[in-house]
Amino acid sequence: MNNPLSDNLEKLTDAVLESYRQDERTQRIGLTFLPSRSKIVEIIRLTRQVLFPGYYGHKILTDENLRLHVENLLVQIGSALTDQINQCLSIEHRDETSDGESHLKEAESITNEFLSRIPNIRRMLALDVQAAYDGDPAAKNFDEIVYCYPGLYAVTVYRVAHELLHLGVPLMSRIMSEHAHSITGADIHPGATIGESFFIDHVTGVVIGETAIIGNNVKFYQGVTLGAKSFKKDERGRVIGGFKRHPTLEDNVTIYAHATILGGQTVIANGSTIAANAYITESVAADSLVTHEKPKLHVKSKKRD
Amino acid sequence: MNNPLSDNLEKLTDAVLESYRQDERTQRIGLTFLPSRSKIVEIIRLTRQVLFPGYYGHKILTDENLRLHVENLLVQIGSALTDQINQCLSIEHRDETSDGESHLKEAESITNEFLSRIPNIRRMLALDVQAAYDGDPAAKNFDEIVYCYPGLYAVTVYRVAHELLHLGVPLMSRIMSEHAHSITGADIHPGATIGESFFIDHVTGVVIGETAIIGNNVKFYQGVTLGAKSFKKDERGRVIGGFKRHPTLEDNVTIYAHATILGGQTVIANGSTIAANAYITESVAADSLVTHEKPKLHVKSKKRD
Amino acid sequence: MNNPLSDNLEKLTDAVLESYRQDERTQRIGLTFLPSRSKIVEIIRLTRQVLFPGYYGHKILTDENLRLHVENLLVQIGSALTDQINQCLSIEHRDETSDGESHLKEAESITNEFLSRIPNIRRMLALDVQAAYDGDPAAKNFDEIVYCYPGLYAVTVYRVAHELLHLGVPLMSRIMSEHAHSITGADIHPGATIGESFFIDHVTGVVIGETAIIGNNVKFYQGVTLGAKSFKKDERGRVIGGFKRHPTLEDNVTIYAHATILGGQTVIANGSTIAANAYITESVAADSLVTHEKPKLHVKSKKRD
Amino acid sequence: MNNPLSDNLEKLTDAVLESYRQDERTQRIGLTFLPSRSKIVEIIRLTRQVLFPGYYGHKILTDENLRLHVENLLVQIGSALTDQINQCLSIEHRDETSDGESHLKEAESITNEFLSRIPNIRRMLALDVQAAYDGDPAAKNFDEIVYCYPGLYAVTVYRVAHELLHLGVPLMSRIMSEHAHSITGADIHPGATIGESFFIDHVTGVVIGETAIIGNNVKFYQGVTLGAKSFKKDERGRVIGGFKRHPTLEDNVTIYAHATILGGQTVIANGSTIAANAYITESVAADSLVTHEKPKLHVKSKKRD
Amino acid sequence: MNNPLSDNLEKLTDAVLESYRQDERTQRIGLTFLPSRSKIVEIIRLTRQVLFPGYYGHKILTDENLRLHVENLLVQIGSALTDQINQCLSIEHRDETSDGESHLKEAESITNEFLSRIPNIRRMLALDVQAAYDGDPAAKNFDEIVYCYPGLYAVTVYRVAHELLHLGVPLMSRIMSEHAHSITGADIHPGATIGESFFIDHVTGVVIGETAIIGNNVKFYQGVTLGAKSFKKDERGRVIGGFKRHPTLEDNVTIYAHATILGGQTVIANGSTIAANAYITESVAADSLVTHEKPKLHVKSKKRD
Amino acid sequence: MNNPLSDNLEKLTDAVLESYRQDERTQRIGLTFLPSRSKIVEIIRLTRQVLFPGYYGHKILTDENLRLHVENLLVQIGSALTDQINQCLSIEHRDETSDGESHLKEAESITNEFLSRIPNIRRMLALDVQAAYDGDPAAKNFDEIVYCYPGLYAVTVYRVAHELLHLGVPLMSRIMSEHAHSITGADIHPGATIGESFFIDHVTGVVIGETAIIGNNVKFYQGVTLGAKSFKKDERGRVIGGFKRHPTLEDNVTIYAHATILGGQTVIANGSTIAANAYITESVAADSLVTHEKPKLHVKSKKRD
Repeated sequence: MNNPLSDNLEKLTDAVLESYRQDERTQRIGLTFLPSRSKIVEIIRLTRQVLFPGYYGHKILTDENLRLHVENLLVQIGSALTDQINQCLSIEHRDETSDGESHLKEAESITNEFLSRIPNIRRMLALDVQAAYDGDPAAKNFDEIVYCYPGLYAVTVYRVAHELLHLGVPLMSRIMSEHAHSITGADIHPGATIGESFFIDHVTGVVIGETAIIGNNVKFYQGVTLGAKSFKKDERGRVIGGFKRHPTLEDNVTIYAHATILGGQTVIANGSTIAANAYITESVAADSLVTHEKPKLHVKSKKRD
Repeated sequence: MNNPLSDNLEKLTDAVLESYRQDERTQRIGLTFLPSRSKIVEIIRLTRQVLFPGYYGHKILTDENLRLHVENLLVQIGSALTDQINQCLSIEHRDETSDGESHLKEAESITNEFLSRIPNIRRMLALDVQAAYDGDPAAKNFDEIVYCYPGLYAVTVYRVAHELLHLGVPLMSRIMSEHAHSITGADIHPGATIGESFFIDHVTGVVIGETAIIGNNVKFYQGVTLGAKSFKKDERGRVIGGFKRHPTLEDNVTIYAHATILGGQTVIANGSTIAANAYITESVAADSLVTHEKPKLHVKSKKRD
Repeated sequence: MNNPLSDNLEKLTDAVLESYRQDERTQRIGLTFLPSRSKIVEIIRLTRQVLFPGYYGHKILTDENLRLHVENLLVQIGSALTDQINQCLSIEHRDETSDGESHLKEAESITNEFLSRIPNIRRMLALDVQAAYDGDPAAKNFDEIVYCYPGLYAVTVYRVAHELLHLGVPLMSRIMSEHAHSITGADIHPGATIGESFFIDHVTGVVIGETAIIGNNVKFYQGVTLGAKSFKKDERGRVIGGFKRHPTLEDNVTIYAHATILGGQTVIANGSTIAANAYITESVAADSLVTHEKPKLHVKSKKRD
Repeated sequence: MNNPLSDNLEKLTDAVLESYRQDERTQRIGLTFLPSRSKIVEIIRLTRQVLFPGYYGHKILTDENLRLHVENLLVQIGSALTDQINQCLSIEHRDETSDGESHLKEAESITNEFLSRIPNIRRMLALDVQAAYDGDPAAKNFDEIVYCYPGLYAVTVYRVAHELLHLGVPLMSRIMSEHAHSITGADIHPGATIGESFFIDHVTGVVIGETAIIGNNVKFYQGVTLGAKSFKKDERGRVIGGFKRHPTLEDNVTIYAHATILGGQTVIANGSTIAANAYITESVAADSLVTHEKPKLHVKSKKRD
Repeated sequence: MNNPLSDNLEKLTDAVLESYRQDERTQRIGLTFLPSRSKIVEIIRLTRQVLFPGYYGHKILTDENLRLHVENLLVQIGSALTDQINQCLSIEHRDETSDGESHLKEAESITNEFLSRIPNIRRMLALDVQAAYDGDPAAKNFDEIVYCYPGLYAVTVYRVAHELLHLGVPLMSRIMSEHAHSITGADIHPGATIGESFFIDHVTGVVIGETAIIGNNVKFYQGVTLGAKSFKKDERGRVIGGFKRHPTLEDNVTIYAHATILGGQTVIANGSTIAANAYITESVAADSLVTHEKPKLHVKSKKRD
Repeated sequence: MNNPLSDNLEKLTDAVLESYRQDERTQRIGLTFLPSRSKIVEIIRLTRQVLFPGYYGHKILTDENLRLHVENLLVQIGSALTDQINQCLSIEHRDETSDGESHLKEAESITNEFLSRIPNIRRMLALDVQAAYDGDPAAKNFDEIVYCYPGLYAVTVYRVAHELLHLGVPLMSRIMSEHAHSITGADIHPGATIGESFFIDHVTGVVIGETAIIGNNVKFYQGVTLGAKSFKKDERGRVIGGFKRHPTLEDNVTIYAHATILGGQTVIANGSTIAANAYITESVAADSLVTHEKPKLHVKSKKRD
């Protein structure tokens, strides 16, 4: 009996290796520095334990064991973060320096700065928790929100990834935001700017683009899009980026489910409310209530069919 | 060389600890009882093995090993469920009894009652599987449905969480439903009431609110929302809950993709069909076919641009 | 003290066993062959390591260790795939042969053929990566796309599952596609036909039906549906399948967010663009720009309320 | 470059397969029943948790959670034990029934009987713990003995394996005793008979043969051997077994380090003490103190060399 | 069919629970503090990574990553050690304080002191490595010794456990020493005192008692015992401890295989060598070479039988 | 409250780092190549699965799945072995080439040669299994021997390590032999030469030195030593190696428990038997039965005391 795989193994391997040689876009062979998606997800997991102590991490915390617990987490995060930031920086800068040079010093400095911002991230998240509690009549208490709400998870990862993007680690920030996207169904680009007390209810399908700006006390429902209005291409057919392509929402704005707001110059001014399914490409003045003419419904009795 | 992290560790830790002291909303320190999200997800995993024997759990089942297998699963679920229900009850009732007292007796009694309902849950799920088979022309057999269909997973977790909510463990039921939400993209509140033979096709983006009521033989497509029509706030700005805010669907109703139905008084009566993208805030009589006037399309040839 | 669970264990077990006897639709007891969802997900994980060497799998690859690494992966995939294909074939064909006979020979032959197609899958994926880079102004480089983009993951699993479906393993292909659905929120049926250089941005909520056909250089945004127009039932109430129910998109088509295109005879011809939220059930000529009349917005100042 | 392994894989595999065909003594291919050493070791681990509750198993036990905890362990042990006993019985009896028939009924009955003996095993082990405490001046308390003493571990596994041997599962009992041998350095054959209150100090190198009989209140030190005096061979050169080959020790006997006692007719009668390094092949009367003439020592000063 | 286990589960459980009630010596139910053997073994594993950096721990160390790596290990060890020392202290002191009070402050202080002694432990171990290299003609280099030599592992764990015993944690020190005993076959009591440059070759069966004292540059072979000469019992039959029961070896002593040296007053003075199998109960002057008259051998030719 | 660890972390780390700088003998920092003990133990585990198919590895083997199973194992072993041999060669040769150069080519060639020797190792092991069966009256069948006998495990690892030593990887061969030593208590140096049909009963404490030579059909009991007679030192005090220091045993020799045979010129000639505890430093003629005068025993009745 001939086993087809064993007969073919050499041939199959040759074909795969040949295919590696043919395309640089889908392989990373021979590089010294490579980030690890699974390690970056682990960094999120540990950071969430610092951000919400007691809620995550399997450990009953007391006043006595708290300091050691926090130190332990910070050192673990610090170590993993420094390593992965170094991988990210080194691979991203490899054009200039052939295969990539270690950027360990810079990675340590970014790690340090990031960790020092954790108290401020916690301050923001406490306001987000309060916003969820105030904004959802189904919320029974804070525990339910921190344990369950995917909107809070999406915003937590956004607030972490946003800091890392501003500290100069775009690749890591994007791996984080797409991880949260896969868990929550909300695609929040870490480049977006989001103010205090932000709440997304039901979350699935929300898209917030890279250059969107969102003020304080803003509330979203599922399926809301803050998108770009048009996509211009350069001469070789690549869509052009790098300018403000997504809308601005001022404070105290509410956007109901599946509303779509497009364009970098579009501003929804302070206190406005946008109805479900609205499609908006122009600015809206302060304190507006924007509804749209519902498409007329036709109700036909099947019985009479 | 000074390592910035080690120089800063004490300072960073102090800052984090200070931030813990400042906000009660994002920490659970010094409490004796705390549920574990990961253990509750494990309870779902084990319960699915009881609900769909042979399909899940890596074990070839025979008439001979079946009883022992089931006993083993029930004892495992019983033990984990009693523990986590106790954690949930004790933390939720901690306002009245300072840090929380053990509710073990009550937890055991709820666990027992829940396990006795498994045969009925199986009866309901068999009807859901049949509904999926009858309702999806792409379904080849029951195996495909039980192994693959996210709609069945969403409904399975809903049926489990719904029982637990009615038995008095709201926090656990919400952790379960949001877990299913993250896996399937369907946000079904465990407080909703859903009849027999329910099927959701493609599932992503479905939202079913806390007080929705759904009859028998109802079929949904992706992106359907059963939501609240308006959100009134109390004097301190918190949205008011506790009354029927989501619609009622009678038996034999079909809702096509992305339809939105809002309001606690809205009733879609027996046998009606709602077209894709319809936006409905009023009741619909029995056996109606509700379509909506499609927005007029403009077709322009780019070539002539 | 009587522990309620232990008193009840026999009774609870009896009830569960009785429920197993009552319904064939939700159990697989006494069968010799059963696929394992977790092993099939593991096959995807390993296959992704072959498809994107260096990006996934924790190993720094060099020219020296590459061949052995690839061989090792191929043998692992070959072994697991042969086993699981055998389980799938044997359970699917169990009607004809009582409890199912081993289909090992056939499984080996399919495995072999599948592995020989990997270079071509890689060729397609490289074009998909390029399409993502060209189509998304937020993309900074190829690394970001391969590490992060859920659209690429959805398409990767589609391209793998599509081959396996055509090689005669429908159950496995569906387990794979629904796994990707749960991770990405995009429900792409492996039966669909998708050409080169396909890109989906933001992905959540995309549905591509079993008989859809998509040409080269097509770009989707979140929430796009390629669906069936109507669902006819047979005499016993089951929806009828087996004919072309989903649309055809020719080359160079762009579909913006939440557009819905329905019907097996609907063709979007070469070079057309469909605007966000458009609802299309008729064919569109080549090079069309299809927009829809936006529902009129009502802007009311709240202040004047 | 040719990778030598991949060039050779088929050849290497052929050679290994050929070697499998040539020798039945070192392979078990094509058999339906095969015990698993790692699962049997796991059974020991779980059984130790039942035997010494609180000491092993990571769980703080209380009066409230105790019953459920024990039931859970018993069901786990019962399930694993039934399975592995079945494998052992079926492979051992395969000569009579070709490839082996399932012995599940018998395995269940043995499992049941074994579990019912656990309280008696615990009674014996409590006496062994007391004997260790009384016999070792370095023992500070019972905790130290149960957590640390390899002598107690060796006796624990012996007492479990001895029951299983008498219940008719010799292969499992030997896998267990050799596991304990590798951990403790004491080779106690499960066929030996050992009374109450047995203690071995330092344990390494102790050998207790299959037909040895040991009374109550016996104490051993490291390196003691209870062995056979001579080995007669049958006509084809195999050593003959099946008769009493190892000594008998009556109650209250102490054997100091590295003493060797040989022969099936050798009896060390009640209350005797055997000195370190003694080599005994004849019976010893009750209440004897057996020392041996120490070899004369020669002390030479190196300086004078 | 009745499954015997399930019929019996309640009865079996009752019997086991009854057996728990009957004996305090083999259970720890209802206690708040309990050390974990597996966590203490983990502490050894981590400590070995600090003691032999680069050799253990899967990480390529560089000057750049070294400080963070060490800090990370120290914080992990510090956290686990503080926890387990607290468990040990609290359970050992429970007689005085009913169920045991937390000794966290003391545990932290001991942890701190222990960690500060690591450099000195390393200094001692470097001398032990050198002694192994100088003393074993089969040793090729230091790598072989640190990676392989069980004698070095036994001494490493002894040096760690000895410090912890002196810092007041006897239970932990014994759990550690018996762990090393099970791995190496050498039973070195942590209470023994062992000087610099100690080497044990082949190690199996070595026993070094609690009150033994060993000087510098001492070398042992397998099976050497430093034991007690006699065991006096108190009125209730327990062997009496608490005084010096084991010998003293001065500097530069070599003890060949299986030699036995007994008694608290026995001193082997500086520079002496003890031959294999010697049995010594009296002191030996400095620079002695102690051999023993070999038992006369009888050589008989089998052929003439 | 000041946490002592956190106050001290920098100081503790400084002290540890300083200790690393002070001693080269106990650290491997800044090296590129380092073998991993745990990966080498894994290679043993996988190799045992190839050597005893069906017995180890959790997989029921059939004629159909056998080839793929073996190929999979060979590729895994090949990959791990090549990697670890490379690490070993590169670190051992680092004196000549500064920090060490990759020896991948050589590692591949050794791996290949080793794998080609597996059939011969299996042939030897089958004879060893037969020898155990013939030599131990307690052995019931081959299964008991392969599953349980530590003597077989010791010899298995010896036969593997011996090949690797001869192929030029001494460090790996020693890591393997000391791993087996810790499991079995038998210290067999991979440099020894051992013929066919070798069996060690009870095994604990056996020591077989580097230059020992053992013929065919030899049988050992526990505690047997084949050692060196004297240890000469060079001028700097290191014991001198590199010449034949351990005895030679010709075919058909039996050595009973705890016998000690020393010296490189000592030959136990064909067919001889050495009694337990014998101490031999001179050659023994063929077919001798060597016993020794037992030390006279003193039997004193305690009663008369």
